[in-house]
Amino acid sequence: MTREFFSVKTVAEVNAGFRPARRTVVEACALGDALGRVTAQPIVCAHDLPGFARSAVDGFAVRASDTFGASSSVPAGLTVLGQVDMGSSPTSIVLAPGEAVAIPTGGALPDGADAIAMVEHTAPAVGGTVDVLQPVAPGESVVRADEDVRAGTEIVPSGQSLRPAQLGVLAAAGVTSVAVFARPRVSIFSTGDEVVVPETPRLEIGQVRDATASALAGMTHRGGGTPEIGEIIPDELAHMRVSLQAALEHSDLIVVSAGSSVGARDLTAEVVDSLGDPGIWCHGLAIKPGKPTLLAECGDVPILGLPGNPVSALVVFGLIGVPLIQQIGGNTRPTPAPRLPAVLTRDVPSAPGRLDVVQVRLGQSTSEACEAEPLFAKSSALSVLALADGQIQVPEDASGLYAGAEVMVELHG
Amino acid sequence: MTREFFSVKTVAEVNAGFRPARRTVVEACALGDALGRVTAQPIVCAHDLPGFARSAVDGFAVRASDTFGASSSVPAGLTVLGQVDMGSSPTSIVLAPGEAVAIPTGGALPDGADAIAMVEHTAPAVGGTVDVLQPVAPGESVVRADEDVRAGTEIVPSGQSLRPAQLGVLAAAGVTSVAVFARPRVSIFSTGDEVVVPETPRLEIGQVRDATASALAGMTHRGGGTPEIGEIIPDELAHMRVSLQAALEHSDLIVVSAGSSVGARDLTAEVVDSLGDPGIWCHGLAIKPGKPTLLAECGDVPILGLPGNPVSALVVFGLIGVPLIQQIGGNTRPTPAPRLPAVLTRDVPSAPGRLDVVQVRLGQSTSEACEAEPLFAKSSALSVLALADGQIQVPEDASGLYAGAEVMVELHG
Repeated sequence: MTREFFSVKTVAEVNAGFRPARRTVVEACALGDALGRVTAQPIVCAHDLPGFARSAVDGFAVRASDTFGASSSVPAGLTVLGQVDMGSSPTSIVLAPGEAVAIPTGGALPDGADAIAMVEHTAPAVGGTVDVLQPVAPGESVVRADEDVRAGTEIVPSGQSLRPAQLGVLAAAGVTSVAVFARPRVSIFSTGDEVVVPETPRLEIGQVRDATASALAGMTHRGGGTPEIGEIIPDELAHMRVSLQAALEHSDLIVVSAGSSVGARDLTAEVVDSLGDPGIWCHGLAIKPGKPTLLAECGDVPILGLPGNPVSALVVFGLIGVPLIQQIGGNTRPTPAPRLPAVLTRDVPSAPGRLDVVQVRLGQSTSEACEAEPLFAKSSALSVLALADGQIQVPEDASGLYAGAEVMVELHG
Repeated sequence: MTREFFSVKTVAEVNAGFRPARRTVVEACALGDALGRVTAQPIVCAHDLPGFARSAVDGFAVRASDTFGASSSVPAGLTVLGQVDMGSSPTSIVLAPGEAVAIPTGGALPDGADAIAMVEHTAPAVGGTVDVLQPVAPGESVVRADEDVRAGTEIVPSGQSLRPAQLGVLAAAGVTSVAVFARPRVSIFSTGDEVVVPETPRLEIGQVRDATASALAGMTHRGGGTPEIGEIIPDELAHMRVSLQAALEHSDLIVVSAGSSVGARDLTAEVVDSLGDPGIWCHGLAIKPGKPTLLAECGDVPILGLPGNPVSALVVFGLIGVPLIQQIGGNTRPTPAPRLPAVLTRDVPSAPGRLDVVQVRLGQSTSEACEAEPLFAKSSALSVLALADGQIQVPEDASGLYAGAEVMVELHG
């Protein structure tokens, strides 16, 4: 009645070894829509930034040599020609020896000037002159024309999910359209004769509403993909085959969460086996929860078969599915999983030889660490999903963790 | 020429003390669009889940008393009545003493049965009977009807930004429309005669493209708000007054990043001062970079005045602006900032009495910590924005950090 798992792999072996070649197409994206989109090529700044020498302070543009030896008792008296206006080119001004120009922070350095005397180091003097009270070196308080970014510099690498600050850099460089990978289209199927859509107002005895698909859709969004929740497939081979065959046409990744019965667990493998080369890559993951995970490729579309219970499905999807979405969507620099240090409130037993993923709820926060309460429950318990703030991992070579241990909690955020 | 800052506050004082009463309206949101939306009331499960007693394993539904004393040598032989189908109510089956029914994981427990014998602890026998090889206790391997969630239990609290797993729980409970706070509308203005829109193909000497607005828009998205980038306001009081006055009508938060010149820095304060009660709450933050930060309320609309340079503006917006968006949008349970432990590669000097925020770039990752390289540059340097993976904080009471120190990096993700 139980099927032997073949080629059981660790999570690390899967992430290193299962590397589908499929990538999404490259498309243009407006800067305003580019948050979180993945760059398809390095982005280079076409010209120097700021592009002109500018003042870093409020003060007076001067010739540094005019200020050598200046002091409070013997200031350098300079004739003030006028002022530089923000955003304007001071082309009408050329500084001769003995002259100065008032300049605001960010103002363009006029011709002839090579340094700025900070306003705090000057004093107004009689007859349109200013006294400079200490010497300034050439280049002092001047931002060079290429100091922010030199022309030709890579400002964003390829394969990067764009962050807010990077949008700012692109805007500064005048890049308002970005070549990005299309979001991977992820088809999500739940299976099982007992599973009904969330909209079902009243359940019959024996029925459960589909929790997994909605959760996987949310995780897909977060991972940079576009989820498409497909129909709920009954435990029937021909039906599943038709559904998956159709999804192969328009999916970059297919995710099937199995029903909880034994027959349902085997169905996905049988169907995938029949859909073509190269077929099943591994069936069985050295992880709890999540052992009956299946990885395959049919044509060039990867297929991920998840365990039937929602907690297991989400754990495996986070460890295997989200990295797959990133890979297919060209994201070669995924942000490390957000983590928070915490102190375990209870012992966590674990069997060596497999990765244990334990859901935790965060308690009172101190400045650097908070408490992590392990949530033990039958793995089907939806309440675990509702309460968990994150999860911890007990590695393959460990045999559990003790209360009081410092752990890193991966946040579900 | 320089204006005195009045009522300088720490970031902690601002976050604790500046608490605008404004909240967005409550609206209905479909479950499929609810990722990251903030619940406006606690969500309660209307009925028990799973709602019927079900089997946690593959096996045989039995009367526990029939198995007492069973062993491999003296098994309990039970007559198999048939099988429970997934998703179906076994109403036609009532177990009498000495009877058993085959049942899959998740199948509904038939009347008369009170426990499940795991298939591994049974052996098929002759003539439609099964041998149970060890005793089972009442309730064994049975998930009670209210075991996942009891009717009336809160499954998601109020003020919670919905996570993928919570979408799953709501789906399981049949909640397909959720009352959420509307996303706060955040009007973003950049100011300065020198600032031009990112679409400007060629800059004149003295001009810079607006980097800040695009970056703030991205941070607003991430914080749960809807950004609206307004016009670039020249350094002219009447103009700014008209623009902000108009924005008050349709904004839940107004953000103004000042120009970099002294006149521009003062302008926002003057305009906000003229827009009405209660007006300016503080002008000056004990932080580097970001000192000239302004907080105000005009009517019931909070206004945040940011420093002119992009790095400073982003640092302050992350520490003050994003929490404001969450507050206005009803998010009372923001996810702790994602952090990653790292080891500093260089000394970071800091002046006591102010919070120093230092941008860092992450280096090689080991299993638990990676290297954090502080990015020092003139704070206007766009390259810092491009390179920084995150930031570290040097608290008010510290006078710097040494190379080799363990730090927590807040990721920009």
